[in-house]
Amino acid sequence: MDFSVVEVKEDVIRRNDDTEDKLRARLKDKKIFFLNLMASPGSGKTTLLLALLPKLAEKYRIGVLEADIDGAVDAATIATKLGLQTLQIHTGGACHLTAQMVEDALEEFDTDKVDLIVLENIGNLVCPAEFDTGANMNLVLLSVPEGDDKPLKYPLMFQVASAVAVTKLDTLEVFDFDFDAFEKGVKKRNKDADIFKVCSLSGEGIDELASFLERKIDSQIK
Amino acid sequence: MDFSVVEVKEDVIRRNDDTEDKLRARLKDKKIFFLNLMASPGSGKTTLLLALLPKLAEKYRIGVLEADIDGAVDAATIATKLGLQTLQIHTGGACHLTAQMVEDALEEFDTDKVDLIVLENIGNLVCPAEFDTGANMNLVLLSVPEGDDKPLKYPLMFQVASAVAVTKLDTLEVFDFDFDAFEKGVKKRNKDADIFKVCSLSGEGIDELASFLERKIDSQIK
Repeated sequence: MDFSVVEVKEDVIRRNDDTEDKLRARLKDKKIFFLNLMASPGSGKTTLLLALLPKLAEKYRIGVLEADIDGAVDAATIATKLGLQTLQIHTGGACHLTAQMVEDALEEFDTDKVDLIVLENIGNLVCPAEFDTGANMNLVLLSVPEGDDKPLKYPLMFQVASAVAVTKLDTLEVFDFDFDAFEKGVKKRNKDADIFKVCSLSGEGIDELASFLERKIDSQIK
Repeated sequence: MDFSVVEVKEDVIRRNDDTEDKLRARLKDKKIFFLNLMASPGSGKTTLLLALLPKLAEKYRIGVLEADIDGAVDAATIATKLGLQTLQIHTGGACHLTAQMVEDALEEFDTDKVDLIVLENIGNLVCPAEFDTGANMNLVLLSVPEGDDKPLKYPLMFQVASAVAVTKLDTLEVFDFDFDAFEKGVKKRNKDADIFKVCSLSGEGIDELASFLERKIDSQIK
């Protein structure tokens, strides 16, 4: 059976200023690299940070911004388990973060004590992609259980990603995930995106991702 | 180590009209029940529909609205596998659907031929919850791999849910999921929400969910 396609559109008022560039310039002056981590809810952002940040912490002083609509589960986890400077950002219901919101948050953050700021953005594969947070790099996660077709459905997120990591590799025994189809989908949106495969629980692939990030960070802060 | 909490907020311009009530009244006159299905990307919305709708189709004439930012993967699946009237809605990047957008879409839809309209909303645990689509009922899915803490992080979605179904029950062998904690989180947001446990692949729990929906549908259209 066939089906029809209809386009419906809502007017969206967008801000157009240079807050994001000013923030990037300010952080560059301070020799700070700003990494924006984006993904769906439950795709393993916090669990990846628990595996990844101890490796990066051997080389850099790290601070973490945890953005959520409500709650502080992840900030508590990061602060308790990793002992890093951690700030919980509540967006008051907003589905994304803007550079201005990051600016406001950083007023409560000691930027003199970090070389690397990691923002764990709101769990959402749509809205966060629409806003430049002022980050130097967007790292997008997609977990195996979410399925390999997501670049087709959420194009902008994969378009703005500098790198994509497929998480929860250990669940391949129970989920079908076609890596070729996924890579094709990602490359259709962004031919330059690097793709990683990781399992945060076993540590598989974490070293490769950490090395990649180190090269990106060093090119900014050294 | 402790962490700070900072509130940042973006201004959002909201429309305030009665489109949703007019749509609901119009569908009620036509004896149509409108079900809005919401969840994260990859939580199993389409797979649930493949298991659930054949049961409901024994009793009702069903039409499906598939909302996506781009692509038509799910509409193709529903139309091909179930042979139901299916309409793909593209939101032009928007992260949610409003009642006005549904109204616009329904102009391309034959409402004389259905008793039940199912909207598969954009995969997003944040924005769709903020907008009344004109539906009679919101069914929210959360898959086991996403984790039991989501009602804490995405409060509005669980607040507006009439019912919540935990999907991918078959993955409990590889994921920890504390149903008591989850239920407690849901009830904190919405003490009246009914909670179901399903596995769309094995069919576990589908009959119970179908019976529940039948009671809701019959109360509207009979």
